[in-house]
Amino acid sequence: MAPVVPTTARDPDFRTRIEAAFAAQGLMATLGGRLVALEPGRCTIEADFAPGLTQHHGLFHAGVLTTLADNACGFAAMSLLPAGGEVLSVEFKVSFLRPASGLVAVARGEVVKPGRSLTFCRADVFVRDAAGTETLAASMMATMMAAAPEAR
Amino acid sequence: MAPVVPTTARDPDFRTRIEAAFAAQGLMATLGGRLVALEPGRCTIEADFAPGLTQHHGLFHAGVLTTLADNACGFAAMSLLPAGGEVLSVEFKVSFLRPASGLVAVARGEVVKPGRSLTFCRADVFVRDAAGTETLAASMMATMMAAAPEAR
Amino acid sequence: MAPVVPTTARDPDFRTRIEAAFAAQGLMATLGGRLVALEPGRCTIEADFAPGLTQHHGLFHAGVLTTLADNACGFAAMSLLPAGGEVLSVEFKVSFLRPASGLVAVARGEVVKPGRSLTFCRADVFVRDAAGTETLAASMMATMMAAAPEAR
Amino acid sequence: MAPVVPTTARDPDFRTRIEAAFAAQGLMATLGGRLVALEPGRCTIEADFAPGLTQHHGLFHAGVLTTLADNACGFAAMSLLPAGGEVLSVEFKVSFLRPASGLVAVARGEVVKPGRSLTFCRADVFVRDAAGTETLAASMMATMMAAAPEAR
Repeated sequence: MAPVVPTTARDPDFRTRIEAAFAAQGLMATLGGRLVALEPGRCTIEADFAPGLTQHHGLFHAGVLTTLADNACGFAAMSLLPAGGEVLSVEFKVSFLRPASGLVAVARGEVVKPGRSLTFCRADVFVRDAAGTETLAASMMATMMAAAPEAR
Repeated sequence: MAPVVPTTARDPDFRTRIEAAFAAQGLMATLGGRLVALEPGRCTIEADFAPGLTQHHGLFHAGVLTTLADNACGFAAMSLLPAGGEVLSVEFKVSFLRPASGLVAVARGEVVKPGRSLTFCRADVFVRDAAGTETLAASMMATMMAAAPEAR
Repeated sequence: MAPVVPTTARDPDFRTRIEAAFAAQGLMATLGGRLVALEPGRCTIEADFAPGLTQHHGLFHAGVLTTLADNACGFAAMSLLPAGGEVLSVEFKVSFLRPASGLVAVARGEVVKPGRSLTFCRADVFVRDAAGTETLAASMMATMMAAAPEAR
Repeated sequence: MAPVVPTTARDPDFRTRIEAAFAAQGLMATLGGRLVALEPGRCTIEADFAPGLTQHHGLFHAGVLTTLADNACGFAAMSLLPAGGEVLSVEFKVSFLRPASGLVAVARGEVVKPGRSLTFCRADVFVRDAAGTETLAASMMATMMAAAPEAR
């Protein structure tokens, strides 16, 4: 299969645009999300484990893993849009492969198929332990829709 | 179609069990989630809008709607399990029908098909405005798995 | 919640348009699919059980239930589009609630949220036995995209 | 991340078991499906384009791509089960990345996370043209459930 995902961004200033969007998300501050890597078509977001992020067994809540994965997909999609481009989540599905026990949750999102209107993305969410070992905890497929700011 | 979802709980004490699980979720306190209705096979969870729950346009983040829906489905499933029964989220899909602008997010979950091991659920998430009008913002289909506490 | 799905079609000739599309689908002839009901925002498609439609236990194959549900959703969406409007399946998720044992598979699709570009749909697939009793076998959530013929 | 998917089968006779299940599926004969590759945790199924497999634009119907992907996932899961093990599709989601125009549809499924009861799989579906070039047309995430024959 020929590679289909661009490795260069049409907007040379995509980092600034995405960092601003990330900073504007109140939920990222609430959950302690960090934008740790960003390149055209790819984005990684992390959050440290904290008692305020848990489900009832004291592990990362599925909602936290999903939020990180949603953002990793959304910003991966946004990185390939022209200047001013924003995205909305159309839908996503997440499978939870094993209990998410670890010190850090790491969501790595990538664009599978960019498009003018719709961008298909996927993300894997790992939990990292004290030794730095990562275990795959969840996997997402997502559809993102381009939205110009004025369109909202 | 014959009704398939029980309207009585096998565990007469299901409320206590679910309220304890809800209270044990650190994320519910973080997001301000409230367990506002619970009956066999159905559960409603709400959260008030707050700046700490937003995406970058200042609306409810998809991750918040998803977290509320996941819990509404999970506790709906849990309400039909025998005493001691707990659930894990196997997977879910969420569609985001429109921007989630409102004062309160309301997730209503219900069991579509209970099972000994797997329970299929769905949830609708509404946003409620100052006049009390609710608008459907998101819809989830979820698969929950029964897990005895000792099995974890 | 205020009703959001139109009950009138913008294209008075939507039936002709959909019947032509249905007839043009080679797969519907192969599977024996029948378009049995159609109104604005809703569509029902059936297929009789046949040995050529089975999985390895001799029941309806998940792929058959999915195909009927995909078409029921797609034509429900198409019924609300302006003249000439066609749809493509963007994505769908299907949950298989129980083994699909029956004489007829019946997929009932409906529009949950129409849109200019994207239409959100859902479908339930029932199996009907000799007594006419229907049992819910599968449930779909789907995203459809409007596509003008010339756009292809 | 440590590799988690076994590369050896517990049942040395898994090929015979899967080939028998494949042959017992009436739908595979109807659609012209071929089991072209099988190893522990992986399965590839193909079907040639034919007028009887089309949607209304004359391309492969989404239902055909989905059926091939469902089987590729199901047999990938089945290859890792002990002797006698069978699988049922619990649920799957498919994204359709581009119109499926080609001579052959090729579904490659693999196990992402095996389990005693549930197995998580994914599949990519490509369309191959006359020059042998493959283009990714659809992508599936699926949950399969182990079912002993007697349990049905």
